Amino acid sequence: MDGTARKEIPIKRTGAQSELRHRNLALVMRALAAEEDLTRAAVAATVGLTRATVSTLVDELLAAGLLEERGAHRPGTVGRPGTVLALPATGPAGIGAEIGVDHLAACVVDLRGEVRCRTASPAANRGRPAPAVLAELADLIARVTRDAAATDLRPVGVTVAVPGLVGRDRGTVLRAPNLGWEDVPVAAPGPLPTVVDNEANLGALAELWLGGHDRLADFVHVSAEIGIGAALVVEGRLFRGARGFAGELGHVPVRPDGPPCSCGARGCLETFAGERALLRAAGVATAAELRSAAAAGSAAAVRALEQAGEALGIALSGAVNLLDPQAVVVGGPLADLAPWLLPGARRELADRVTDRRWRPQDVVTSRLGRDGVLRGAAYSAVRAVLDDPAAWIHAAAERDRTA
Amino acid sequence: MDGTARKEIPIKRTGAQSELRHRNLALVMRALAAEEDLTRAAVAATVGLTRATVSTLVDELLAAGLLEERGAHRPGTVGRPGTVLALPATGPAGIGAEIGVDHLAACVVDLRGEVRCRTASPAANRGRPAPAVLAELADLIARVTRDAAATDLRPVGVTVAVPGLVGRDRGTVLRAPNLGWEDVPVAAPGPLPTVVDNEANLGALAELWLGGHDRLADFVHVSAEIGIGAALVVEGRLFRGARGFAGELGHVPVRPDGPPCSCGARGCLETFAGERALLRAAGVATAAELRSAAAAGSAAAVRALEQAGEALGIALSGAVNLLDPQAVVVGGPLADLAPWLLPGARRELADRVTDRRWRPQDVVTSRLGRDGVLRGAAYSAVRAVLDDPAAWIHAAAERDRTA
Repeated sequence: MDGTARKEIPIKRTGAQSELRHRNLALVMRALAAEEDLTRAAVAATVGLTRATVSTLVDELLAAGLLEERGAHRPGTVGRPGTVLALPATGPAGIGAEIGVDHLAACVVDLRGEVRCRTASPAANRGRPAPAVLAELADLIARVTRDAAATDLRPVGVTVAVPGLVGRDRGTVLRAPNLGWEDVPVAAPGPLPTVVDNEANLGALAELWLGGHDRLADFVHVSAEIGIGAALVVEGRLFRGARGFAGELGHVPVRPDGPPCSCGARGCLETFAGERALLRAAGVATAAELRSAAAAGSAAAVRALEQAGEALGIALSGAVNLLDPQAVVVGGPLADLAPWLLPGARRELADRVTDRRWRPQDVVTSRLGRDGVLRGAAYSAVRAVLDDPAAWIHAAAERDRTA
Repeated sequence: MDGTARKEIPIKRTGAQSELRHRNLALVMRALAAEEDLTRAAVAATVGLTRATVSTLVDELLAAGLLEERGAHRPGTVGRPGTVLALPATGPAGIGAEIGVDHLAACVVDLRGEVRCRTASPAANRGRPAPAVLAELADLIARVTRDAAATDLRPVGVTVAVPGLVGRDRGTVLRAPNLGWEDVPVAAPGPLPTVVDNEANLGALAELWLGGHDRLADFVHVSAEIGIGAALVVEGRLFRGARGFAGELGHVPVRPDGPPCSCGARGCLETFAGERALLRAAGVATAAELRSAAAAGSAAAVRALEQAGEALGIALSGAVNLLDPQAVVVGGPLADLAPWLLPGARRELADRVTDRRWRPQDVVTSRLGRDGVLRGAAYSAVRAVLDDPAAWIHAAAERDRTA
């Protein structure tokens, strides 16, 4: 027993040191993901390590191509002049893919979260056999992968966004009613690790990582296309719930004796603010027509959106009273309708939120537009490198050795 | 710069090792808090360290009086026979205090969470000046502190439970409408560090730590006395929200055009299931009368509770659809009314929860009874020792040195 204890000490120490290096490399990468063009001194101040330690870490990241230096310190900031650091536009990249009810898309983003290649095609996916949908998606993924290889990008993984509930292993779509899918495994279409996730979750993560809202780490993200989805970000992390089903804002009761809902209950938010209810109330056939009609001042369209906004505000009031988020972010296709939806939603929130410091401006519209979900998917794949750059460095060394 | 780097290495290493020791000591303590009477081998298997490492840690904890050995290995379990380990009934203790609308209470719990001393007195605290309330509470705290000292217990801190919103520093009651308090600092009544927390939060923590529900780590805890409070436990931690106000289930809209609520809105859960609404609907004057009337089969009382249960179920459906918890736990004084409240609540949940795996038995009644909040407060104070036993060992050594 003593012998074991003696043998164990050096092993433990190495483990702790290696763990420390992994963590510190990740701290530096994430600091530069959050804010670019920092000097080594500014990175040290941000992550709380000494300049000497940061210099060693930065040298290692530069050598691996995970950081790049830029000529001059930006003017107007304190500290001695010097080069600044930034994430590169080359190296690790993430592939995002999106299965919508009426479209498919794929894109590649670099470590900075910039979209570098993108392709999309309209597709009537409702009720179409899943293998056909996945085969067409694999073609799009192969296309953007080829495009990425033509630049200096090396994709590390694929994330597929779907409008449905996803299993905890993130390999299976459990149920996507608008596609007609039940228990569909989403296998890797190529050599890269592939995960699948709910579109509302990926839209929320895009908002967290790329949305440009400073210090917004606790929010409810509402999006909608056919259904109404929401996702909760708490302390900078996606809140998935015990079984992975959190965020079903569309089925929060708004008027418990209201119209029957597709879920079997009555008066859910979706029966007042879902696309079907909205189009019927406005007397139009498509979401595009609804937006045009509202923009043109159609009384029916404006009224339908105002009432949907009120229902949204009632459901969100419950969510805000339960969760106390910093903000509600309206994103995805719903953001296009914000001018007509938000006044009613803000009014209900102002009347119903218990915390007196809640303000109407705590409901914000996403700046990411319709590509938020796709970018979130792609960036979630490349985030793995930010979270553990040491693993990338190790894998790259292995590749060089065996090449 | 090189010199700094050279000097830094040994400091860093020591820091990492010391951090590792702190963490490993806490792992051992928490394993024995979750399950008592474990052998060293069972502890090693639980925490994922080698037996040799665990033996060293256990020896240190035994020497500090933070663990105790019991004679024999319990029969029927695997592994070689040997002594088993448990948390002691002596040593660190936590003091809990409770400010209710109509009572004050204080208690001491040991590391095992057992109540060792307890005192309480009725008090008409509504609208009473805060200094008078706090002075009376200080007397109760002093009394249980003396009682604890007469045994071998050493209190490490005080947690005060209040029916109101508490500031993020947990030193101030921001608003407790049923007491009539606004911005009341709760200063330490003695030499011990004192924090204040919302009673619903402490009730939920008691359920997490002492409730006896195996592996229940994600749940909504509903409690009520005058108002209706809830608290969310997520991944074994209390979810406080961005401003510390999460859990306002009582102000989730149930029927948006319903009766006016004390919060200024309409149709909140509290207007259907709060004490005032319940007593009026049942035609009785006190909560005790309501329970007796329901137990005696009074149609008005049973009907009032059934309707309140339905309203509770509607509000909880929204919470479950948003948060996807493992369970809803009904605790505090509300648990006494569970036989009449739960059927309606379960029916609404079954109809409205989107996740088809939700079952009526996922709504459970707390086994802690009315003392849950007070025990949760006291145990939260002594948990600090479980979370960092090394700090306790260090402080005890300092005391011995200066004694």
